[in-house]
Amino acid sequence: MTAEIDPQLAQLYKDFDAYGLLPLWTQREDLMPAVPQPAAVPYRWRWKEIHDLAVRAGDLVPVGRGGERRAISLANPGLPGLPHATPTLWAAVQYLGPNEVAPVHRHAQNAFRFVLEGDGVWTVVNGDSVAMRRGDLLLTPGWAWHGHHNPTDRPMAWLDGLDIPLSSALNTEFFQFGPATLDDRSTPERSRAERLWGQPGLRPVSALTDLPKSPLAAYRWEHTDAALTAQLELEDEGHEGVASPGHAAIRFTNPTTGDDALPTIRTEMHRIRAGAVVPESRESASSVWQVFEGDGVFLLNGERLEVGRGDVVTVPSWTEVRIEARGDLDLFRFGDHPVMERLHLYLTDRTNPATTEGPLR
Amino acid sequence: MTAEIDPQLAQLYKDFDAYGLLPLWTQREDLMPAVPQPAAVPYRWRWKEIHDLAVRAGDLVPVGRGGERRAISLANPGLPGLPHATPTLWAAVQYLGPNEVAPVHRHAQNAFRFVLEGDGVWTVVNGDSVAMRRGDLLLTPGWAWHGHHNPTDRPMAWLDGLDIPLSSALNTEFFQFGPATLDDRSTPERSRAERLWGQPGLRPVSALTDLPKSPLAAYRWEHTDAALTAQLELEDEGHEGVASPGHAAIRFTNPTTGDDALPTIRTEMHRIRAGAVVPESRESASSVWQVFEGDGVFLLNGERLEVGRGDVVTVPSWTEVRIEARGDLDLFRFGDHPVMERLHLYLTDRTNPATTEGPLR
Amino acid sequence: MTAEIDPQLAQLYKDFDAYGLLPLWTQREDLMPAVPQPAAVPYRWRWKEIHDLAVRAGDLVPVGRGGERRAISLANPGLPGLPHATPTLWAAVQYLGPNEVAPVHRHAQNAFRFVLEGDGVWTVVNGDSVAMRRGDLLLTPGWAWHGHHNPTDRPMAWLDGLDIPLSSALNTEFFQFGPATLDDRSTPERSRAERLWGQPGLRPVSALTDLPKSPLAAYRWEHTDAALTAQLELEDEGHEGVASPGHAAIRFTNPTTGDDALPTIRTEMHRIRAGAVVPESRESASSVWQVFEGDGVFLLNGERLEVGRGDVVTVPSWTEVRIEARGDLDLFRFGDHPVMERLHLYLTDRTNPATTEGPLR
Amino acid sequence: MTAEIDPQLAQLYKDFDAYGLLPLWTQREDLMPAVPQPAAVPYRWRWKEIHDLAVRAGDLVPVGRGGERRAISLANPGLPGLPHATPTLWAAVQYLGPNEVAPVHRHAQNAFRFVLEGDGVWTVVNGDSVAMRRGDLLLTPGWAWHGHHNPTDRPMAWLDGLDIPLSSALNTEFFQFGPATLDDRSTPERSRAERLWGQPGLRPVSALTDLPKSPLAAYRWEHTDAALTAQLELEDEGHEGVASPGHAAIRFTNPTTGDDALPTIRTEMHRIRAGAVVPESRESASSVWQVFEGDGVFLLNGERLEVGRGDVVTVPSWTEVRIEARGDLDLFRFGDHPVMERLHLYLTDRTNPATTEGPLR
Repeated sequence: MTAEIDPQLAQLYKDFDAYGLLPLWTQREDLMPAVPQPAAVPYRWRWKEIHDLAVRAGDLVPVGRGGERRAISLANPGLPGLPHATPTLWAAVQYLGPNEVAPVHRHAQNAFRFVLEGDGVWTVVNGDSVAMRRGDLLLTPGWAWHGHHNPTDRPMAWLDGLDIPLSSALNTEFFQFGPATLDDRSTPERSRAERLWGQPGLRPVSALTDLPKSPLAAYRWEHTDAALTAQLELEDEGHEGVASPGHAAIRFTNPTTGDDALPTIRTEMHRIRAGAVVPESRESASSVWQVFEGDGVFLLNGERLEVGRGDVVTVPSWTEVRIEARGDLDLFRFGDHPVMERLHLYLTDRTNPATTEGPLR
Repeated sequence: MTAEIDPQLAQLYKDFDAYGLLPLWTQREDLMPAVPQPAAVPYRWRWKEIHDLAVRAGDLVPVGRGGERRAISLANPGLPGLPHATPTLWAAVQYLGPNEVAPVHRHAQNAFRFVLEGDGVWTVVNGDSVAMRRGDLLLTPGWAWHGHHNPTDRPMAWLDGLDIPLSSALNTEFFQFGPATLDDRSTPERSRAERLWGQPGLRPVSALTDLPKSPLAAYRWEHTDAALTAQLELEDEGHEGVASPGHAAIRFTNPTTGDDALPTIRTEMHRIRAGAVVPESRESASSVWQVFEGDGVFLLNGERLEVGRGDVVTVPSWTEVRIEARGDLDLFRFGDHPVMERLHLYLTDRTNPATTEGPLR
Repeated sequence: MTAEIDPQLAQLYKDFDAYGLLPLWTQREDLMPAVPQPAAVPYRWRWKEIHDLAVRAGDLVPVGRGGERRAISLANPGLPGLPHATPTLWAAVQYLGPNEVAPVHRHAQNAFRFVLEGDGVWTVVNGDSVAMRRGDLLLTPGWAWHGHHNPTDRPMAWLDGLDIPLSSALNTEFFQFGPATLDDRSTPERSRAERLWGQPGLRPVSALTDLPKSPLAAYRWEHTDAALTAQLELEDEGHEGVASPGHAAIRFTNPTTGDDALPTIRTEMHRIRAGAVVPESRESASSVWQVFEGDGVFLLNGERLEVGRGDVVTVPSWTEVRIEARGDLDLFRFGDHPVMERLHLYLTDRTNPATTEGPLR
Repeated sequence: MTAEIDPQLAQLYKDFDAYGLLPLWTQREDLMPAVPQPAAVPYRWRWKEIHDLAVRAGDLVPVGRGGERRAISLANPGLPGLPHATPTLWAAVQYLGPNEVAPVHRHAQNAFRFVLEGDGVWTVVNGDSVAMRRGDLLLTPGWAWHGHHNPTDRPMAWLDGLDIPLSSALNTEFFQFGPATLDDRSTPERSRAERLWGQPGLRPVSALTDLPKSPLAAYRWEHTDAALTAQLELEDEGHEGVASPGHAAIRFTNPTTGDDALPTIRTEMHRIRAGAVVPESRESASSVWQVFEGDGVFLLNGERLEVGRGDVVTVPSWTEVRIEARGDLDLFRFGDHPVMERLHLYLTDRTNPATTEGPLR
């Protein structure tokens, strides 16, 4: 298209440019590829490396108003300069030292925390103190006030997940400062949210309006572990329950609707038996995985990535994924699937994209 | 209208009759009253009386194919000859003696069991054995195969609730016999349904299709009690949670949607503090209440009914209800509210029926 | 059960009765039949007969406050004494003489009018005057104020359909008188509702909240006829569109949701080519059909009923229906299907009721 | 943060970089601004300029396989190098010369065409020929096969709208080639889609499954014009209907659900009376407007942009918009609002973002 271009055509393109126009026909292939061509790449971060750096940051960087959080973003190498794990998801390790407090703010972006190890921090969400402990998933739905405090003499680190890149892409960001510190430093075992919403299938009669974001602030490891254990036991007994052979999985959901806990972020926990495999698949959605326990291999577009405890792996859209468990392997996963599903843009390679009756209806 | 009727008019009415017709104008007031005029009446059954009769039936009437269940229906005196507690709800006490088995069948009618006292019976729902214990709510959604067996040497009695009258009114009954006995006499502590669905907010990835009927076969008393206790504690601490002052309440819901556990029957548990009152209200829906523990008073259209442990009270549509707790009062309630809500026929006297902007939208 | 009954058992049954109880085991079969056993029967009313009686009523019975409407109910012979066409549906012919006015009222019951012949009456719904003409379907959703006036010197008769029996069965009736006469006697060609909502697929930005009842007060014959004509032409051209071979059908829907126009009543128009047949089927829902034009045969549980213009046929639940068109046959149909669907009680004999995976999910 | 940075901190940042990490605290403000800070800018393209260039392109650039379409994208100057009108929306003028054919393809991206002037082209969507005429909105939902042909001797130009940028941002692109030409060159007045779905409130009984994308391929100007005219007449008569004083507006919707015609793109038509004003507002969504008829002024963040027939205006998220009609002003608008609404990210400045009870629930 560029070699020996017709002078009239050259002039036309120049005029396009002058008037804020661009021809489709020279860009069509890039703009509308046959299948997704993400700039983001499959990538693995080692927990030890991130954690060591977090510890060093803990010594050097204070937590406070302005910066707001000592959070270190996992920046996809395919998206240089951007702190994005995938085009829609932000993942970071946050570190809070002994007796530190992260100031109160709120934002339209949806957030969660997942705890790989340790405990001792309370996140205070809309005035409700929520203990953070190993294996727990804690929610901070968009526009909820929140700060954290660590009343112990031990530091704590955890994984933060947000939809910051999505929000940036859509220009839907809102942010507001609250108090620079936390008045309420209470340390209850269970949050009020859990006391109200934490029994299976029971809904307070005082709260019958459906909510787009889960009111259950914490999903505790004891429940997650029990659910995964039960699925594998049921498989042993010859009954339904597992997601695929040797592979238990639960989704964290909003008890008022049964949908994903957050409207833009899927959160799940997976357990794969030693030696089992989650076979190859592709989907038009992106994910971030963290190894909670055990070790194994992610095959991403054919590339083998060994993973162990705490390691984080990013899986862009339409990447072929196969997971092999070496020992028993527990994996936390978050993804942008609710976005694709709600917009009817979700497709997997198990459905045939060549048929009109595909999942893109 | 009838006195000294015009002969031509008399002939007209006679001809109407001959041709299968009826004039509206002579019936309009009965047919379309200003507010509901249920034939069913508010009524109380004493637990001791029902239970004594159930015990006698246990001695005299076998359980088996044909009759299917040793269940004694609470028949509303306002609906003579019919075994209906209200025009849509059937309530019965079922009694199963030592080592008895109730044969397997299924029906389109939705059903549940609520256990006032005792234990030792397993209800087997679609091949899944579900233990029945004091305070538990057990579901048998429409068209699920089910039978019961009592492997102990003690009899057990419980409350059955079904939508039989609704199904009769709508002509939507279907029924089918299964095996006359139960092969599987296993007695697990937890059903497979609970193992899969019994953790708060966690959904198996293998079961992501929403279901109109709850897959959680059992709602255990320990969870119900904990949820009610928490609401009253939160009230003491100055936080939201109770349904009204001194009155905790939870609804049993379908974890795949957050809706009522059954599509035609609402099920709830209420706890009212000693001395507290649930103030007067009316609604265009009918309920059956059973006292689980404690004693108090139901004021139904102004009539005082003293109630104690196990007593059952029926509340027809648009009956004024006020509940007073003498001691701490735990109440199980079921009703036909999902029917009215799904058909947009639900109204309470707290909304003004005289405004167009009423809840009948 | 009754012959030579054991004295102890006889006493037990007597005591049941004394305490407001009824045993299930003696009633189970009636209460829970294998398939619906409606008391209502298939029946045909001849238009000429109804209409002649309506004309006589027009001479003898005034229209006014109290009786409210000169409406003659089609009373199912299987439901003696009740003005019900089926257990959930009320159907009547209403007759308004020259210059008569039917007073204003409203009720929770949902209503529509379908016009077999004639014109000249305006129904005024929440202050909006809606012309009634041959082939039109006019809605009066529950709790909308409405009256009618006939400014012409010709009488007019039409079919009224309501969910009165359902409302009676559920005890959800509310009724209120408005002015005894109509101040606004305007006679616009198009109602305001049609002007706002009457363009296909276009929704006023001022009315974006979904409504449970259609805001489109009138569905005009010209549109219905065009839609049915198009389906049969598409069939001739080899394209999709007809409901079954030789059988065009449209459903009247709520433009804010795509659901049935009324939450408790389905309304449809069918056109069957001369010689075509709608083959046998059964469903757990009841219908009332009126012949709009043409003649044919309804086979109901094997019984042949010849029908011609204006004749009305009632089809109870689980009745086997087959329709044969002698000439081109246009049929209006209303039914209680939305009730069954919303309560998950809808079943047809094309699905196998013997499988768990039936439509009763 | 940058001046005289501590050497240890410098090393930390260097190590972050080496391990694919980025600190939040140095980016927080950019990443999470108080309100959206779109890179896209408010902008106006003049129709005459675009159209002249399109005509020149018609002479110089063939239409065919590979480039696929002679479409000229309106490229937002704030997003240099990208053919995006806003971060989610693509807008282009497409030009098809006499007897030209645009080849068949399909893509996951949703598309529509809006016709400012002319006629004579048929777009063939899944084998259904759809005439394009002034004022019409034509849909090409994602994954529908489509090509265009111009059987006349006159060229035609129109506005194309797609969600290409959204699809790029989310990595959900799929594309497939169909035949390089169109076999079916039929030129029906009405498409089959319109014949099936084009009557208000009427739904084919053969098509009762809800669809995420509207099956109504064309929304004709005669209906749009009638709806807008009616709203302003109703305003004159003192009735409800207009969106705001002097401002009629309709939304193009999916008749199976009442939702937006496409799941990712809102489409609307607005008519503002001469002299009337649509007052200032902001929203967390982006729009593209085209003047269909008349002239007026867009005030975008206080900047006055005069607009006349055919001019296109882009309005990024959170831009303050005020519209003044000089003469009667007809405006077509499309936007990404369904995305924000389905993800619960939609906010306007009329709700107070400083309250927890904001629309971000």
